Amino acid sequence: MDQPLDELFAMVKDAGARLRGVAHCTPVMTSRHLNERLGADVFLKCENFQRIGAFKFRGAYNAMSRLSAEERRRGVVTFSSGNHAQAVALVGRLLGIDTCVVMPEDAPAIKRQATEGYGARVIRYDPEARSREEIARELQQQHGYTMVPPFDHIDVVAGQGTAALELCEQAGGLDLLLVPCGGGGLLSGCAIAAKGVSAPCRVCGVEPEVADDATRSFYSGSLQTVKNPPTIADGTRTPSLGKITFPLVRRFVDAMQTVSEDAIRDAVRFLFYRLKLVVEPSGALGLAALLSGKTQARGRVGVVLSGGNIDGPTMREILAGE
Amino acid sequence: MDQPLDELFAMVKDAGARLRGVAHCTPVMTSRHLNERLGADVFLKCENFQRIGAFKFRGAYNAMSRLSAEERRRGVVTFSSGNHAQAVALVGRLLGIDTCVVMPEDAPAIKRQATEGYGARVIRYDPEARSREEIARELQQQHGYTMVPPFDHIDVVAGQGTAALELCEQAGGLDLLLVPCGGGGLLSGCAIAAKGVSAPCRVCGVEPEVADDATRSFYSGSLQTVKNPPTIADGTRTPSLGKITFPLVRRFVDAMQTVSEDAIRDAVRFLFYRLKLVVEPSGALGLAALLSGKTQARGRVGVVLSGGNIDGPTMREILAGE
Repeated sequence: MDQPLDELFAMVKDAGARLRGVAHCTPVMTSRHLNERLGADVFLKCENFQRIGAFKFRGAYNAMSRLSAEERRRGVVTFSSGNHAQAVALVGRLLGIDTCVVMPEDAPAIKRQATEGYGARVIRYDPEARSREEIARELQQQHGYTMVPPFDHIDVVAGQGTAALELCEQAGGLDLLLVPCGGGGLLSGCAIAAKGVSAPCRVCGVEPEVADDATRSFYSGSLQTVKNPPTIADGTRTPSLGKITFPLVRRFVDAMQTVSEDAIRDAVRFLFYRLKLVVEPSGALGLAALLSGKTQARGRVGVVLSGGNIDGPTMREILAGE
Repeated sequence: MDQPLDELFAMVKDAGARLRGVAHCTPVMTSRHLNERLGADVFLKCENFQRIGAFKFRGAYNAMSRLSAEERRRGVVTFSSGNHAQAVALVGRLLGIDTCVVMPEDAPAIKRQATEGYGARVIRYDPEARSREEIARELQQQHGYTMVPPFDHIDVVAGQGTAALELCEQAGGLDLLLVPCGGGGLLSGCAIAAKGVSAPCRVCGVEPEVADDATRSFYSGSLQTVKNPPTIADGTRTPSLGKITFPLVRRFVDAMQTVSEDAIRDAVRFLFYRLKLVVEPSGALGLAALLSGKTQARGRVGVVLSGGNIDGPTMREILAGE
């Protein structure tokens, strides 16, 4: 991934063309109250309104729509218990590609049912006994499946970047862009898009304090990991940035910021009460950095609200905590 | 209110011109899942994203912006413990008009604080001892205030109708429009707008089964009342349609439908999980009629989601009930 920015940016723009009319061009919301409170113009990119309820549809569609006829015929495999699983399953249905999702036995039934509901075959495994990579590799060998990983793939990265590409077009020039960071697919893609549109735009990744592997990796220059971090932001529980996303984040992101669990909950509540938006904890990280004062809002600030798939018990607990 | 439709429709269009750049032109959301489930094209007018979180801003602004300089100088009074209170307070701040809101002692503190937060003076009273009309009349006499009632005023009705006017423009032609009904201000305004745009569009008002005064009034032809109905849809707890709204509803509405409390809860949950929208129970009445099968969706169906001001305990209870 040492291509110059303009080549990487071209991949995001190509992804944008592929997604046109398939992904939602999600709305950008603003709030007078928020702008007054922060002394800035904040533009919220509502990927909670994306198909399957999160940005993951973009990357999965971009990657799977580029497969050859032969690859499509053989099918696709991935591992995920979250939004990427549903994204791959739905894209498989749209493109007529068989999909197989490797999911730990202890994944919530509701996630498995949603993934199966889109037509994927779910393979469950005991995470104590075997690794998901091992299972996925076995399935690849048996069936000739193509792997579509949740973040560490350039077509996935380029697809996720279209969220920021749209935001820059919808909001006009941005001075700062805040993006949640798990495995770094969304963050690196959005950084490429934002820098491609306007080099002076600062890009800041945000992750939970208790899952700060990307922040430590970013500032130390060597890949750091976390294991099952106890964060409510389940989309950021990935062990580390990837082989592709780590160097991209180092190249195109200007800063990383961590936020507390309380700040994440506050942001989810703010979005609920003030914006009337259902946003999952991982999706509220960028706003949490602003509302907590960890990141100073200045000028025109874009925030990617990356998804809205929150379960009832989690939202009830967050609403109880005010 | 026996003017011909074109005169009443002109009032709605005038209100639309007054509200331009002041009220939000709220987005219209669609859902593939919803359309497939109902076999129709459903257009959700998101007044939960309106200023103060509900359509009430429209009517209050339209009425108060028409006051003379002398009336503005003297100030405005209203009675409401709900969204209308906040709407009048915010409009007062925007137009530099002193506002006074008569609210029962037992109204939730959060509603009082929100109203005061917009700069209104809140007068609390004991609803067992005195009527709000009596207090408001006294304040009018003392201070020369102008009364801006929550629904029974033609400028308020015309303002609320702009929600449907926008929806018809945004969605294109509609075959059916579903509108929540409390005091009938939103319903009669929207019916005038929908019929003004396209006479064949059917307009249906929806209210809770346990607060079915408007349905009984509509079908019997004589004004029926309810007293403190035990519905979760607090915006529809008004005792009856008004002197102005009742004849308008009779003239321009095609049907009334009631829905159960469970159907209302189901609709709020559906909007939360599937649409990622925070909608208050009263705001979900139209969708409740469709999802419960009480109203048959056919062709192009508009639904006014009238507001999103739901408190935490109520949403927690609804989410717990799945």
